[in-house]
Amino acid sequence: MTEKTTFNIAVVGATGAVGQKIIDLLDAKDFPINELKLLSSERSAGKKINFQNKELTVEAATPESFDGIDIALFSAGGSVSKKLAPEAVKRGAVVVDNTSAFRMTEDVPLVVPEVNNEDIAKHNGIIANPNCSTIQMVAALKPIKDAFGLDRVIVSTYQAVSGAGNEANKELEEQSKAKLNGEEMKAELLPVKGEEKHYPIAFNALPQIDVFEENGYTFEEMKMINETKKIMHAPELNVAATCVRLPFFTSHAESVYIEVEKDGLEVADLWEALKGADGVVLEDDPASQTYPTPLSAENKEEVFVGRVRKDLDQKNGFHLWVVSDNLLKGAAWNSIQIAQSLIQNKWL
Amino acid sequence: MTEKTTFNIAVVGATGAVGQKIIDLLDAKDFPINELKLLSSERSAGKKINFQNKELTVEAATPESFDGIDIALFSAGGSVSKKLAPEAVKRGAVVVDNTSAFRMTEDVPLVVPEVNNEDIAKHNGIIANPNCSTIQMVAALKPIKDAFGLDRVIVSTYQAVSGAGNEANKELEEQSKAKLNGEEMKAELLPVKGEEKHYPIAFNALPQIDVFEENGYTFEEMKMINETKKIMHAPELNVAATCVRLPFFTSHAESVYIEVEKDGLEVADLWEALKGADGVVLEDDPASQTYPTPLSAENKEEVFVGRVRKDLDQKNGFHLWVVSDNLLKGAAWNSIQIAQSLIQNKWL
Repeated sequence: MTEKTTFNIAVVGATGAVGQKIIDLLDAKDFPINELKLLSSERSAGKKINFQNKELTVEAATPESFDGIDIALFSAGGSVSKKLAPEAVKRGAVVVDNTSAFRMTEDVPLVVPEVNNEDIAKHNGIIANPNCSTIQMVAALKPIKDAFGLDRVIVSTYQAVSGAGNEANKELEEQSKAKLNGEEMKAELLPVKGEEKHYPIAFNALPQIDVFEENGYTFEEMKMINETKKIMHAPELNVAATCVRLPFFTSHAESVYIEVEKDGLEVADLWEALKGADGVVLEDDPASQTYPTPLSAENKEEVFVGRVRKDLDQKNGFHLWVVSDNLLKGAAWNSIQIAQSLIQNKWL
Repeated sequence: MTEKTTFNIAVVGATGAVGQKIIDLLDAKDFPINELKLLSSERSAGKKINFQNKELTVEAATPESFDGIDIALFSAGGSVSKKLAPEAVKRGAVVVDNTSAFRMTEDVPLVVPEVNNEDIAKHNGIIANPNCSTIQMVAALKPIKDAFGLDRVIVSTYQAVSGAGNEANKELEEQSKAKLNGEEMKAELLPVKGEEKHYPIAFNALPQIDVFEENGYTFEEMKMINETKKIMHAPELNVAATCVRLPFFTSHAESVYIEVEKDGLEVADLWEALKGADGVVLEDDPASQTYPTPLSAENKEEVFVGRVRKDLDQKNGFHLWVVSDNLLKGAAWNSIQIAQSLIQNKWL
């Protein structure tokens, strides 16, 4: 039996914000594709998308859509993944799922390749892509944890609207225009589609991303807390999160406080650990006002770190500012990296 | 000698974002004014401002402007305060200074009336109004500290553009329009006027407010750290801050992590302490998506607190979301409160 060198790929949620980025990356990264199948809900079926000079028609996803598929990249929402990912697996596909459907399921690896690539090998057909805000944080924390140990993380996020999809971008755009024209802003979508109340996001900040849990935390906050521990294989790590949606289109930023295990470190030690790290770019020079921002990170694949400071009271405390494109490293690019790793390591 | 019942008031920086709010409040609060003098730089002198059906002309501030003035409310920048506040004091005025010029000077009280009103009595002619982001935080922390003790504060801020003045509002407006029209955004002012580099604030987040200090913290961050300790009379309190400018016009929001001294508290205990607190409004009901936002706090005098959560790891750790109008409680209203207290307590 000859070994496959090209693969049949399905993109589920092909017309969404993340799906579009996945399709762009499959092209830009010369992904070894035999056949590309673009899938969506009934509503978006029939749309045409150009890929490598061919016009592809988006099809409604059904269980049979996955016959003959090697890798299925899901980003069409949790309910679609819950229904169709097992069907894809049953038909021999490996699923890379960019929803929260299976992230905390015990036998599903939750992977950021720079952090726990080897977990991919243990998959049983599904590999979960973590939440966007989690991915960039653990990518920045991994080299620090490896070098100095890590006891504690407290993060406050500054999250882009595109994390809630193309519709949310449209809402930000329309509300912004209304406000600038002195008209009333219509709020129909954010903070959470389908919830009872909606608040304007334009020229505002919403301290709610996803629904509230019983304990007063939002689901987004609990995702950051639980996923970080799972990805880093650190159930004992203290993690706290406050997640806030803000009026920009792309890139999440994070104010991260950490306590490391090793004593006596200085900012330069953290710089050193971050400089050599996979997928991380250090942008930190106060003298020249150098630090990452959501706009500066847009359309880039790396995780950018700046504003590294030693806490003035806690001897092992440090502060970081972590920024990354939420649709790329936070979603599409991380999924593609997992798919690349599946192929390169023959873990399919 | 009959006791004065009305007072001669000077507003320095009358044409600025905060000065305008001060003038509005002097009217709205029926401040006992005998004569109101509006002062500014040479550049803005000559402008006309309506006050209680009279048209007042803004005059260029000189040392002699303060002859006969009882209370001078300064908000025209640190250099103006450094030059003219001592001149006003020399002429018998009491200065309420809304700049950073004298905040950390030992014999100058730094006051948030809900927190340390009694410090006003010790003034030697100048009372400093704290930094906007500090005021709202200490107002929220005071009832918690009084009830349960306070060991530690870690804050990440979400700060409005109006904190950098009317020009910055204009920059946000123009950049927003440019972006929505597909044009390039011009950045000429933020993050810090006069600094070498400028970055767009529209649809972005800037992790720099004010200039950088030697230790890698910004001056804004050091203000929050040092002022909080001074106002709360708590030199031993651990305070850490990360300050971020965001694309909204009004109100600062803050993600605040605290550790209290008392063991065994629940969210309901913090709610109880906050509910009865002067100048604080609790808006916290996850079930009904109730929490404060920058837009909901706009034009209100109170400090709003929501998203109170118990840390999941640290037994005495809690998280809060604190929002207030940065031009009102964060600046103009706090100054007016100090002036009211000077009169009511006969501390002039």
